[in-house]
Amino acid sequence: MFLPILFIFSLLPFSHSAVQDFCVGDLALPDNPAGYPCKKPAKVTVNDFVFSALGVAGNTSNLIKAAVTPAFVAQFPGLNGLGLSLARLDLAVDGVVPMHTHPGASEVLFVLEGTICAGFISSANAVYFKQLSKGDIMIFPQGLLHFQINSGKGVAIAIVSFSSPNPGLQITDFALFGNNLPTELVVKTTFLDEAQVKKLKGVLGGTG
Amino acid sequence: MFLPILFIFSLLPFSHSAVQDFCVGDLALPDNPAGYPCKKPAKVTVNDFVFSALGVAGNTSNLIKAAVTPAFVAQFPGLNGLGLSLARLDLAVDGVVPMHTHPGASEVLFVLEGTICAGFISSANAVYFKQLSKGDIMIFPQGLLHFQINSGKGVAIAIVSFSSPNPGLQITDFALFGNNLPTELVVKTTFLDEAQVKKLKGVLGGTG
Amino acid sequence: MFLPILFIFSLLPFSHSAVQDFCVGDLALPDNPAGYPCKKPAKVTVNDFVFSALGVAGNTSNLIKAAVTPAFVAQFPGLNGLGLSLARLDLAVDGVVPMHTHPGASEVLFVLEGTICAGFISSANAVYFKQLSKGDIMIFPQGLLHFQINSGKGVAIAIVSFSSPNPGLQITDFALFGNNLPTELVVKTTFLDEAQVKKLKGVLGGTG
Amino acid sequence: MFLPILFIFSLLPFSHSAVQDFCVGDLALPDNPAGYPCKKPAKVTVNDFVFSALGVAGNTSNLIKAAVTPAFVAQFPGLNGLGLSLARLDLAVDGVVPMHTHPGASEVLFVLEGTICAGFISSANAVYFKQLSKGDIMIFPQGLLHFQINSGKGVAIAIVSFSSPNPGLQITDFALFGNNLPTELVVKTTFLDEAQVKKLKGVLGGTG
Amino acid sequence: MFLPILFIFSLLPFSHSAVQDFCVGDLALPDNPAGYPCKKPAKVTVNDFVFSALGVAGNTSNLIKAAVTPAFVAQFPGLNGLGLSLARLDLAVDGVVPMHTHPGASEVLFVLEGTICAGFISSANAVYFKQLSKGDIMIFPQGLLHFQINSGKGVAIAIVSFSSPNPGLQITDFALFGNNLPTELVVKTTFLDEAQVKKLKGVLGGTG
Amino acid sequence: MFLPILFIFSLLPFSHSAVQDFCVGDLALPDNPAGYPCKKPAKVTVNDFVFSALGVAGNTSNLIKAAVTPAFVAQFPGLNGLGLSLARLDLAVDGVVPMHTHPGASEVLFVLEGTICAGFISSANAVYFKQLSKGDIMIFPQGLLHFQINSGKGVAIAIVSFSSPNPGLQITDFALFGNNLPTELVVKTTFLDEAQVKKLKGVLGGTG
Repeated sequence: MFLPILFIFSLLPFSHSAVQDFCVGDLALPDNPAGYPCKKPAKVTVNDFVFSALGVAGNTSNLIKAAVTPAFVAQFPGLNGLGLSLARLDLAVDGVVPMHTHPGASEVLFVLEGTICAGFISSANAVYFKQLSKGDIMIFPQGLLHFQINSGKGVAIAIVSFSSPNPGLQITDFALFGNNLPTELVVKTTFLDEAQVKKLKGVLGGTG
Repeated sequence: MFLPILFIFSLLPFSHSAVQDFCVGDLALPDNPAGYPCKKPAKVTVNDFVFSALGVAGNTSNLIKAAVTPAFVAQFPGLNGLGLSLARLDLAVDGVVPMHTHPGASEVLFVLEGTICAGFISSANAVYFKQLSKGDIMIFPQGLLHFQINSGKGVAIAIVSFSSPNPGLQITDFALFGNNLPTELVVKTTFLDEAQVKKLKGVLGGTG
Repeated sequence: MFLPILFIFSLLPFSHSAVQDFCVGDLALPDNPAGYPCKKPAKVTVNDFVFSALGVAGNTSNLIKAAVTPAFVAQFPGLNGLGLSLARLDLAVDGVVPMHTHPGASEVLFVLEGTICAGFISSANAVYFKQLSKGDIMIFPQGLLHFQINSGKGVAIAIVSFSSPNPGLQITDFALFGNNLPTELVVKTTFLDEAQVKKLKGVLGGTG
Repeated sequence: MFLPILFIFSLLPFSHSAVQDFCVGDLALPDNPAGYPCKKPAKVTVNDFVFSALGVAGNTSNLIKAAVTPAFVAQFPGLNGLGLSLARLDLAVDGVVPMHTHPGASEVLFVLEGTICAGFISSANAVYFKQLSKGDIMIFPQGLLHFQINSGKGVAIAIVSFSSPNPGLQITDFALFGNNLPTELVVKTTFLDEAQVKKLKGVLGGTG
Repeated sequence: MFLPILFIFSLLPFSHSAVQDFCVGDLALPDNPAGYPCKKPAKVTVNDFVFSALGVAGNTSNLIKAAVTPAFVAQFPGLNGLGLSLARLDLAVDGVVPMHTHPGASEVLFVLEGTICAGFISSANAVYFKQLSKGDIMIFPQGLLHFQINSGKGVAIAIVSFSSPNPGLQITDFALFGNNLPTELVVKTTFLDEAQVKKLKGVLGGTG
Repeated sequence: MFLPILFIFSLLPFSHSAVQDFCVGDLALPDNPAGYPCKKPAKVTVNDFVFSALGVAGNTSNLIKAAVTPAFVAQFPGLNGLGLSLARLDLAVDGVVPMHTHPGASEVLFVLEGTICAGFISSANAVYFKQLSKGDIMIFPQGLLHFQINSGKGVAIAIVSFSSPNPGLQITDFALFGNNLPTELVVKTTFLDEAQVKKLKGVLGGTG
């Protein structure tokens, strides 16, 4: 007697293959300006929507005493097309995330542990920075230079959320000194002393 | 000798009033489909970008033993126009966030403490649910029914991130039973028994 | 003498292959967050832009006495990338489209025949419903629960328009009771009685 | 005993004033590129979402024997920000909607009554036209020249749907001949004979 | 000693293949509503971002004494997904770009040399036109009919910028008279005299 | 006899006040994330769409021997909501536009005069730079560090186009050294020597 209701629903064209509630990225295919092609829905499982790497502290045994663990579309293809992503930030004592930008996303940082001095600089050249404690959140608008410094006596941990599955990351020092951009061009476009440029190129592996 | 460089920069039209890197919402003015009008940049301070309420546990002394603390544009106007927001979820033992949707945003949940059974249901009627442990993240695509249940023996806490400063929230039970939608219409459109509808209207304060 | 004007136009690079006025979806290729890859313009004909299935009444010989005939991108690939779609709704006497949402689109319904009681519920839990007569149109904003009931003495027919070629459809009852979502989870997340859940799972073919 | 659940829900910040599921336009305030400012939710009723003017035939007692009745945001402010709109098209015998474009929206036409010859022309200068019967739908991609002609022996009626609440309308003849654009400029930019231009300026009320 | 900083950076997942700062279009693959699939970043060179054809005057030895040289995505795939494009306009003495629209983009024209009479017509049928001198810029909003005429005594040159990598171009005369759209339909939908239509079909190579 | 056609057109609701083909910004009112409120169409004239300041060379008598003259929405409100803008770049001999980003837009530069060495650096830390000659165009994708240097023996001039009416501009040196960001924080987040930071703060007027 109740079969007819099943019948009408099964007539509806809302099969797995026709509905795009989500689009788990197939990273093996070329992406496009909207992201990656979708994995076939029939092959999608709950594991495409769950990611565990942010539960583990990053390795901060390095000069900046910091680690960023991303859950962007490249690591977590379930985010493809959904307009957001996450990352984990670990800062050892004296750790710092150097001045950087995300060309494609705004960011909100949530302090899980410790104390972080964070800030950004606007196009109008205004500086906005503050000491953040556990539980504080702070906004870093899209494309603006910003930084985070462990300003406490223990480790600091944060979760950062982005308004894109692919926010990008440009660390200014790395961009200026960590590649083959000729020293002459760096000097001309930054007004830094040549000795300073060469010193940092040495540290960051740059050539030219 | 160095004054000329200052001169040229000061000639550039990038004053506070002309550049819109961000648009801190002025909630006193009417919003529109893009959000709220911007607070004047000269009145914006770092405090417009920092919010502390997510550091405090919500009160879970209620029937569902759960609390959601939002940092949406209405609470945190610095998010206006930036395409993302956050919230904190506290689940006491046996706590549950009932079946609900966010009409305007996809969501990613990060488990801070405890164990959470979370899931969503697709348009194609497939069910995706899993036990999440501390450090796991899970995606809930835009507009789909989803839920979170404390499946552990202690409290559970999560930070949730949304792809909109104004994700909306529609708790199915509250929408069906917590207002003046006539019982007759609820019965006709849900196939629930009338007694069931009246019982839940009683619990949730609905009339009609 | 007039040939030169032809010459200059033919020099312009606006060949079929270079201009994307439209992008008829090639459903055989994987879609992506923006939709399907485009059929080659040289193979596109007027028939890619014309669709006739909405002229035929759907079969309402079922329990809900209702039928929805979609012209979404999966049925009508000419809509790919154009930001809208249509569907036809047939309601026999006592027919009902149960409580549902479209996760990806707002909707406007136009009553072609008969009388329809239609409504939606907002995030703020306000109820908006009304009797609609032939020629009336009604808006259902994106992602919100809504329903349509034949409230007249004859058949009712409507054309519905969506703000996406792929609006999605989540019928609440089907999502809750028509799949393998465990009864225990349904009970916990809806506060419905277990007997009620099992009864509707029986009707709608659900298991677990 | 059940009061606590009410309590927690009422603590949620999802009041009418804070949630933007919809944004009924307040046409008395200035619009911006996203649409009109929102009417206060507390003043919104179901009547903001229902519109009846499309149920009445337009007056086709005119030279083109056609009438368009719009339900755009200017007539139906509930559509503000929702990404779609509708209109009704009435064509008497021999009626025609002259060649025109919608600068801001794609269109889908549904034939309610009669027979319509409709078509559009692409950027690549390909022509797509067809006889449409009752129940047929046809797509007209954004910004392209298109037309509809009553090609049957009785009246024809159609409902047209747009991918914007404000699709715009530019009737080519009206743009070329119905205003003060100097005849000399029309001749130079259309290659039409001056006599032809002056004749149509006479018909359409143009000057210059 | 400085190696650790390199180490942490190299651990970051920001390899060429994972970051989408840009998406140089691979025109050999099918496009989609968002544009073309991306060329693999490892194969991208600076030459994908540099284009020289706009430095050369177009050939204006034709009836309209005008030439448009585009740098759209089809000619310059580096623009794929970036939301803008350019073109060069050469107008010999008495040259004219006939009445046309760009269905997919707004335009800003910058006069490099000479004097240009340019204008557009709004949906509200208002005419906006002006004599432009070297250095002037003028806006033509999306989808509206517009034209440019050399109104000086020497050649005129302009650079035009569009808000899309694929703005499209529909020259009204070419659309009406340069294809197989039947004369009868042109007459019915434009109110032009049949002789006028046939004359221009002859000039522009139209048939039917 | 022809009056009826006028009648039907005048019945159409496409008055100035109802159609939004464009939205000339009213800079006196507060903006929001979509831009500025629209000037009333009845007050809009062709002069709102024409701007002449780019025809005049900027003053390059300064240390960087460069000047940027913008036509962004703040200078040219007709661009409001249209998704593009322009600027003029003048570079005297040895002139340089220092390393900078536009947080909100991609850029295409067209060389009008002279020779320019221009480049950008990707998130993947790849460097793309090239000598550009008159007539060359080059792309700078959104949010990435880039620069332009006069690499010829005479002046260089360029027109730059942006994919936003409000692209923003963050000159790295000015952001790091031209405000009150404490020297200690600059040192920590850039790894520059303190002496270098203080020297450039002196040049650029920074304090702290």
